[in-house]
Amino acid sequence: MTGFTDAELRQALIAPQSVALVGVSGTPGKLTARPLEFLQANGWQGRICPVNPTRHEIGGLKAWKRVSDIPGGVDHAYLLLNAEPAIEALEDCAKAGVKVVSVLADGFAEAGEEGRARQARLMEIADRAGILLIGPNSTGVVATATGFVCTTNAAFRAEGMRKGRLAVLSQSGSVIGTMLSRGAADGVGFSALISTGNEAGAGVGRLGQLLLDDPGTDGFILFLETIRDRDALAEFARGAQARGKPVVAYMIGRSEEGQALSVSHTGALTGAARSVSAFLTSVGICEVEMFESLIPVAATLSRVARQAERPRAVTVVSTTGGGGAMVVDQLALRGVPIAGLSAVSRDRLSAQGIPLGHGKLVDVTLAGTRYAAMKDVVRTLTADPETGLLLVVIGSSAQFNPELSVAPIVDAHAEAAPGAAPVLAFPLPHAPESLSMLEAGGVPAFRSVGPCAEAIAALFRDPPAPAVDTDLPTETQARIAALPEGPQDEATSAAVLATLGLQGPAAVVLSAEGTLPADHGLRWPVVVKLISPDLPHKTEAGAIRVGVTDPAALAEAIAAMKQSAAAYRPGYRLTGILVQEMRRGLGEVLVGLTRDPVAGPMVTLAMGGIMTEIYRDSAVRPAPVDPATARDMIAEVRGMALFSGYRNRPRGDLDALAQAVADLSRLALAPEIAEAEVNPLLILPEGEGVIMLDALLNVAVPGA
Amino acid sequence: MTGFTDAELRQALIAPQSVALVGVSGTPGKLTARPLEFLQANGWQGRICPVNPTRHEIGGLKAWKRVSDIPGGVDHAYLLLNAEPAIEALEDCAKAGVKVVSVLADGFAEAGEEGRARQARLMEIADRAGILLIGPNSTGVVATATGFVCTTNAAFRAEGMRKGRLAVLSQSGSVIGTMLSRGAADGVGFSALISTGNEAGAGVGRLGQLLLDDPGTDGFILFLETIRDRDALAEFARGAQARGKPVVAYMIGRSEEGQALSVSHTGALTGAARSVSAFLTSVGICEVEMFESLIPVAATLSRVARQAERPRAVTVVSTTGGGGAMVVDQLALRGVPIAGLSAVSRDRLSAQGIPLGHGKLVDVTLAGTRYAAMKDVVRTLTADPETGLLLVVIGSSAQFNPELSVAPIVDAHAEAAPGAAPVLAFPLPHAPESLSMLEAGGVPAFRSVGPCAEAIAALFRDPPAPAVDTDLPTETQARIAALPEGPQDEATSAAVLATLGLQGPAAVVLSAEGTLPADHGLRWPVVVKLISPDLPHKTEAGAIRVGVTDPAALAEAIAAMKQSAAAYRPGYRLTGILVQEMRRGLGEVLVGLTRDPVAGPMVTLAMGGIMTEIYRDSAVRPAPVDPATARDMIAEVRGMALFSGYRNRPRGDLDALAQAVADLSRLALAPEIAEAEVNPLLILPEGEGVIMLDALLNVAVPGA
Repeated sequence: MTGFTDAELRQALIAPQSVALVGVSGTPGKLTARPLEFLQANGWQGRICPVNPTRHEIGGLKAWKRVSDIPGGVDHAYLLLNAEPAIEALEDCAKAGVKVVSVLADGFAEAGEEGRARQARLMEIADRAGILLIGPNSTGVVATATGFVCTTNAAFRAEGMRKGRLAVLSQSGSVIGTMLSRGAADGVGFSALISTGNEAGAGVGRLGQLLLDDPGTDGFILFLETIRDRDALAEFARGAQARGKPVVAYMIGRSEEGQALSVSHTGALTGAARSVSAFLTSVGICEVEMFESLIPVAATLSRVARQAERPRAVTVVSTTGGGGAMVVDQLALRGVPIAGLSAVSRDRLSAQGIPLGHGKLVDVTLAGTRYAAMKDVVRTLTADPETGLLLVVIGSSAQFNPELSVAPIVDAHAEAAPGAAPVLAFPLPHAPESLSMLEAGGVPAFRSVGPCAEAIAALFRDPPAPAVDTDLPTETQARIAALPEGPQDEATSAAVLATLGLQGPAAVVLSAEGTLPADHGLRWPVVVKLISPDLPHKTEAGAIRVGVTDPAALAEAIAAMKQSAAAYRPGYRLTGILVQEMRRGLGEVLVGLTRDPVAGPMVTLAMGGIMTEIYRDSAVRPAPVDPATARDMIAEVRGMALFSGYRNRPRGDLDALAQAVADLSRLALAPEIAEAEVNPLLILPEGEGVIMLDALLNVAVPGA
Repeated sequence: MTGFTDAELRQALIAPQSVALVGVSGTPGKLTARPLEFLQANGWQGRICPVNPTRHEIGGLKAWKRVSDIPGGVDHAYLLLNAEPAIEALEDCAKAGVKVVSVLADGFAEAGEEGRARQARLMEIADRAGILLIGPNSTGVVATATGFVCTTNAAFRAEGMRKGRLAVLSQSGSVIGTMLSRGAADGVGFSALISTGNEAGAGVGRLGQLLLDDPGTDGFILFLETIRDRDALAEFARGAQARGKPVVAYMIGRSEEGQALSVSHTGALTGAARSVSAFLTSVGICEVEMFESLIPVAATLSRVARQAERPRAVTVVSTTGGGGAMVVDQLALRGVPIAGLSAVSRDRLSAQGIPLGHGKLVDVTLAGTRYAAMKDVVRTLTADPETGLLLVVIGSSAQFNPELSVAPIVDAHAEAAPGAAPVLAFPLPHAPESLSMLEAGGVPAFRSVGPCAEAIAALFRDPPAPAVDTDLPTETQARIAALPEGPQDEATSAAVLATLGLQGPAAVVLSAEGTLPADHGLRWPVVVKLISPDLPHKTEAGAIRVGVTDPAALAEAIAAMKQSAAAYRPGYRLTGILVQEMRRGLGEVLVGLTRDPVAGPMVTLAMGGIMTEIYRDSAVRPAPVDPATARDMIAEVRGMALFSGYRNRPRGDLDALAQAVADLSRLALAPEIAEAEVNPLLILPEGEGVIMLDALLNVAVPGA
């Protein structure tokens, strides 16, 4: 791979000096004519090089036969050809030293075996040449600052394209156009819009990384159908977090129908929706519920931040009781704490004769349509250290008298001292003039209740936990390296987990004959289980007995178990007999590690049995986790209330549970471990720990 | 009460000949000057009578001293006075025979004890005179057909008010203005908008009833903070259903914060959100999730109905894969079934060379931007008997080439044969021209994904079940009439429920000494319980023993229970001892009847114990229900999967359970019964019934 630096790639991506349009048509109206039309219409000042072997001139510009013929080369190429010719053209771009190449064609990974082979050829060329490849199936790249509108998306035909400071990275090519038109209608513009297509080369993560330090970009909008570059996306998101640049995402595929379409549409693997959501959250990406929230949430987060020293609650002022109550309802449904008035502010505003309502909604009614009163309210509340964030909901006056009810908000905001609480506004009626006034005055404003509530909820999100820095003990690594492929028996699995700190009950492993040594040291009663790689379901096989009270009963139990296991699975292999002390606790839970094909290793904590299956009562996080995150998981599983002093029950040892979740989650670092599960894990009373009652590891082909 | 007919009241409400504006100001800009300004600005042709004792003339019209001075009287009055003068003015209106009076003032039920007394005085006058009273706290009444804009809401200052065929009834006075302005922005107008205020007199139900047969109204939008006239609302909703006029509602108060505000804002009682939702659904009112969905859902339902003979599924066609997939996702998340293409349509369209995608989304890609192809797609699919409903999602071409991608939808719709499947459209970009074209062509069109999905989900709702026509057996009535106030003991409660068909286990009731008669006939083991009005919690009191195996053990158990109950509650009254056969079944559930202060009697089915408390796994419906609705409730409770053949468990007798739910729900007809609960109700295997293991009735003061 030849070495272009990231700075070179960034420049070639959004601020190239020259672009080759390979296969561009000179026939107006044709799809492949659009990039040239749009670049010219937007007055892009770089050098446009049409490449088309059948033409001498296109759009008033000399046409070249191939990219490698262009003297001085080009930074960026857009291949407007079908799949096979595009591969040839990419080879030529490689020869010519092009840094960034977008590919329009479909017929690659989404098109079966043949398409996947084509995509591999494409990537072989790009990787060899160090080309940043966008697509295939990309509608192109737009960077508004310079008018670099290098796209086939018809939406960019719009005149007077609005510039802005948000970058859009979309796996759907049509959505970049939707964003442009909807943003324009809402007064929001963008710095860059990139259709990432199949992401054979650069995914949203890699492209995000390149744009992280673009001084023209303050935040990012992602439209996702899947995740193809998890690690790069994580690194991008954490980098954005560090720079105070929000990343807001909408993801298709939360329904089964949506998932199926994601697969068929782009040939993508899809992960489980909740694993993907957990991953996005864990790296600080704000996933919105509604498509319509993408722009307002990103626009808000890129301009306003909650101040850490201020309370974690929003104060809602309204001139309209019903509208204000509706907004409060939607905020509360999203878990946003609502603050009432502080005593100081209440006294001060009451002294001005301003009505303040009774509940938590500060309903100033018609006083909010008097300039002086509204300004006093906003000034007082933004200066009040007990205000976390101020939202003003404005009724009909926003439509007819913005100079009375909206101007004072803008003026109070402009005159506020540094460190004042942020103020946001929501005009309830259709009120374009108020919206413009608020936007111009730097007060984020909303058109709809849902996006308003989503944006404020996003401002109150916790920052992501730092990535967990851990590794596997040498002994764990050594034991794992020695494991054969496939499911491991319980004793072997438990032994590996014991090296991470998970403890089972006192136990001895007998040979297959089942003779209990005299010095076994166990307290009766015991649980007895046959150890066999062929009996994954011990209960069904009759290979487990509980409550065995003495040596004679043990011998009898073993004989009976062997008989029933042989009947259940003739020829089963018996590698030993596990005899464990029988322990009782407050209840049982399940802790597991799985690997999501898209979102990566995930640790799950769940109530065992029916509660998990029927109520899906579980918490999932990217693994590994630390005990603090494991405590968050415990708080998320509703059934864990049973171990938290519910109805005067004794409390369980949740610290030990959190540690066990963290311990097991470290197996994420052993790629050989496809799955790990402790089920049940017995919860003992506070201070007494947890006990692994059964364990299962599943080993994949190493490196698979 | 003097008798105005409903027809007279309807006319005076929305088409009066004359109106008195009592307390109207002649100072432009003042709140109380607005109704006169708006009536004049909208060219209302009726007679406007300003009433103001301090003026001779207002707005060029003669001012009257009082309403009763106006020769010939008036139909409708709007009282723009403070609370006390408004009461006096109402008395004068009564004298003058005014039919409809709206009251602007606040200071009534929402203002404490004194306000409630005022409201009672107001209603005494209105009831005596048969006046339809709107408010207090009402911003007025608007009827667009005649320009009767009799409101103080500033939003009605807008020029060129759009007329339409939807009526808005709002408990929030500001929301009628919000509706007007948002509707205008979306091209939707209204027939009437009424601010119902405190609803001391007419509530949304009563006003809805009056408007039911308004030929200018095709559907209703309700903005609710509570329900004050449940029975009238139910009757209105069922009447609307019968007339094919949809009723769509948004209700505040789904969060605790929202509930608290509802109470403080209008002095309303609020019911439990899910009881209220269950009530709305049961009478056929479509409750929307999002405020923004109110107008598009009502507009859609008032123009389109699903055809019963067509499949219950939507076919989604798109020109944009990503956008189409997003819409499918949102539909599927709301439980809307998505149909693929029928074989016939697939063959026919494929033969035209139209790409159709692979999954359930009919992704015609760029073919959808060719007039002939799009028209063929819409024509073929709406004619296909396998299409339930057709939704077309249009990408960038909706913005720039509606004549290519949108016109064919409208044309195909116009040319469709009677009985063709309904077609709806969603342009993904901001595309006002396409929206206008679709609306003009009678194709419902959406601006946002959420409302689009909500509207289609609403089209697929089941019609409400007919009201259950049942009564209480004479024996049940007689037993209830004999009950004292307060909680009843188990034996008494079970005896009442037995008259409705609920059966307990075989049992005998012993006297307090506890001597078991020789001919008791019970099979051992038995359960023994002390019967006492003082021991509602038997387990805590040690007043229940299970698994008692013989007469000696029974005598011993009774002695021990008496001792522990006496220790737990010294001086407790012992009225008898219940000895029941001990039965085992597949599991236990809870069936209960409660009375919601707003939504009325409710029957609940839930999993017992922890599952109910932690997972809130229950279904609730207005009581009484019939067994068919009870089956719907069973399907809604997730834990009932345990009795439906889950993991090869034996099936429970769900028919008997449904019958038991219906039986218990009939107690809704006995107003004395404040609460009833069977907990646990034991589920036996299919065909073997259910058994009431414990029962509790709570009797309120009759008529309370």
